[in-house]
Amino acid sequence: MDKIHSLTGMPDLYDDGDMTNASSKLFEVEKVIKNIFINYNFQEIRTPVLEDVNLFKRSVGNSSDIVNKEIYSFNDRNDKTIAMRPEGTASVIRSIVEKKLEQENHKLWYMGPMWRYERPQKGRYRQFNQAGIEILGIQEGLPEHEMISVVCSVINQLGLKNCYIKINHLGTKENKENFCKALVDFLEPFKKILDEKDLERLKKNPLRVLDSKNSETQTILKNAPNLKEFIDQSSIEMLNSIKNEFSSLCQIEIDFNLVRGLDYYSGFVFEAMSSDLGAQDSFLGGGRYDQLCSQLGGKDMPAIGMAIGLERLASITNLDKPNRKLVSFVIVASNLEQKAYKIAHHLRSINKEVILDIHLSEGSLKSKMRKANKNNSDYVIIIGEEELDNNTAVIKPLNDELKDQQVVSIEDLYSFYKTL
Amino acid sequence: MDKIHSLTGMPDLYDDGDMTNASSKLFEVEKVIKNIFINYNFQEIRTPVLEDVNLFKRSVGNSSDIVNKEIYSFNDRNDKTIAMRPEGTASVIRSIVEKKLEQENHKLWYMGPMWRYERPQKGRYRQFNQAGIEILGIQEGLPEHEMISVVCSVINQLGLKNCYIKINHLGTKENKENFCKALVDFLEPFKKILDEKDLERLKKNPLRVLDSKNSETQTILKNAPNLKEFIDQSSIEMLNSIKNEFSSLCQIEIDFNLVRGLDYYSGFVFEAMSSDLGAQDSFLGGGRYDQLCSQLGGKDMPAIGMAIGLERLASITNLDKPNRKLVSFVIVASNLEQKAYKIAHHLRSINKEVILDIHLSEGSLKSKMRKANKNNSDYVIIIGEEELDNNTAVIKPLNDELKDQQVVSIEDLYSFYKTL
Repeated sequence: MDKIHSLTGMPDLYDDGDMTNASSKLFEVEKVIKNIFINYNFQEIRTPVLEDVNLFKRSVGNSSDIVNKEIYSFNDRNDKTIAMRPEGTASVIRSIVEKKLEQENHKLWYMGPMWRYERPQKGRYRQFNQAGIEILGIQEGLPEHEMISVVCSVINQLGLKNCYIKINHLGTKENKENFCKALVDFLEPFKKILDEKDLERLKKNPLRVLDSKNSETQTILKNAPNLKEFIDQSSIEMLNSIKNEFSSLCQIEIDFNLVRGLDYYSGFVFEAMSSDLGAQDSFLGGGRYDQLCSQLGGKDMPAIGMAIGLERLASITNLDKPNRKLVSFVIVASNLEQKAYKIAHHLRSINKEVILDIHLSEGSLKSKMRKANKNNSDYVIIIGEEELDNNTAVIKPLNDELKDQQVVSIEDLYSFYKTL
Repeated sequence: MDKIHSLTGMPDLYDDGDMTNASSKLFEVEKVIKNIFINYNFQEIRTPVLEDVNLFKRSVGNSSDIVNKEIYSFNDRNDKTIAMRPEGTASVIRSIVEKKLEQENHKLWYMGPMWRYERPQKGRYRQFNQAGIEILGIQEGLPEHEMISVVCSVINQLGLKNCYIKINHLGTKENKENFCKALVDFLEPFKKILDEKDLERLKKNPLRVLDSKNSETQTILKNAPNLKEFIDQSSIEMLNSIKNEFSSLCQIEIDFNLVRGLDYYSGFVFEAMSSDLGAQDSFLGGGRYDQLCSQLGGKDMPAIGMAIGLERLASITNLDKPNRKLVSFVIVASNLEQKAYKIAHHLRSINKEVILDIHLSEGSLKSKMRKANKNNSDYVIIIGEEELDNNTAVIKPLNDELKDQQVVSIEDLYSFYKTL
């Protein structure tokens, strides 16, 4: 019979506890990130995977690659165009607007799969994972510090090397508009030289020309007006203040060319990158987006947020295997299952921090001991006919050669297991 | 501007730490379930959300409601029919076959959203959550005990009342076939009375007539051949053995009419239900499905698994609020942000078990204290100009009226926070 295959660019992720396995690493990174979010008192929000495609057209913006080429969309049975979410922020704000919660303060986190349709390449999948946080309802000030504090915690708690944070400030709405205008004027004489992509950006969101990967464009830009000349003093002070505050914890620099790929950013923006990632070196980015909420039909609501590309982050992380005790439980005679299994069930209920692996398949004691060694079990508990008759069990330590195995009563087995 | 709405039957889930909130309860239930799976040494597998629709047609079966009416499918840009996964098992087996892992043993768990297209009703959503486990590669025997042990752990660790487990055994392949034949023969004279749905079942998978909700059908079935007369002695012994083993932990009964809604089950099957759930009282179900792997183009592989409906399970669960310490951090003067914030960042890094809520919005000390009280903070840490000048902080306990606030040095603040 024909095999059925998984769809292109949509991998299966397996955890095997081995930290050289990309999936296992990803899952561990997720745990660390989740704990940081909770530690900072963010609360989980889980928006649906499917959304009206217009949500992303209106939020992420027409100049962004996400909407132009990459969105994974389809028509449903009512001929409505539905999108698999390409990112998390738009849905969070859609939810806040729908529930009329714009007047309250929120600190939210999300984590989960996102989709894009682009042709999959090495390290770029159609289904991938992002985590993010949003601070909603609070004006510029402490939320900016909180964001960079989270970034430093991510970098430090994962023990990342070769990382640096870039920060910038797009100024007030007027600052940003004046700078855009100056940039358009400056680029006018070069229009013939710019490639199609940069011309498109110039038309839809001129700031994004600064992101151009075209080296000719970058040469032209060397003489372009500098954002620094257009933003007000308080914005520059904020950049300096944040740089000073965190520079002892992480490498952090001000980069007046950092504009971020999405249209909705205003004010403070930031990115974290690693030289271990190659050309596409960013694994985290965010910024303030005070206009998005009204853009989606809600009231004005100040907001700042960030998103983390979890596969990229995991790829530069070296984590140790999580340190949880593992005990193998071996039943050596058949027809004893019921009684022996009941002991195992009780062990699991009295200590939920220990992993108890009952060897479920048939096989000799020897083959089961081999498996327990291969598993890196800390102990093996062995129960055979003799033990069941005498109400005893054998405990054999595997990670300490000095300790011998011992026969203990079932009561003593329970006491021993409780204190593991 | 128009608001954009979420799609029908696809709710946003918010955690607010309040255990009367359905989302908060769901998230807590997920944590408990996940910990049980890990405690039993299952390993996580995460298959993609999207699959070739044929996977579910071939596995879940043509007689099941899932494929006939409910599957959420669409045509992609290449006119291939894609399904949002309606359940987890088929994808797990597809993955095992694709990776040629049928000859090894696996214990896998998954958790995540699933979809169906049916018209949403009260308590039934288009996007909902399931968790499940699969034991692959091991013949009938201990895996059956392991499954029911997990079910008992779920019921007991969540403190569920009014729950019971039903178990049954469909016998060997021949037993099942002989019983099906006898059932078809018995129902032949009643064909005129059966409704359309039951006739359809009779044609595609006669066993499922036993699941009929039609009371006339159930009256007819009272005199139908009983599965018990068709299955071999060892199957009945297994049922009795499991019943005896777990009856002190959970209410468990043998029900020879239990057949489960999906076509792929064979051998041992089980369900857990609660009288708190009303008419649709099942929240967990599973069984052995030794034929599925070859049905999907793989080698023969013995397998048993189960799935949990997480929304239904959460709805009958009463959990206490998770017991994690919460501290509010209040900065009372402006222009002190940088220095004060740095202290907060350090606190978070030295004790990752405590939640530190920095009050990020502007406001008076009074309003911030009100917020800390409302939050149920255990302590408030207050830093103002005087404290910053003297390198001190104020610690105020909120949950103990006998304790007064005290002024401590920053060093003592760190020591205090570490031991919380």
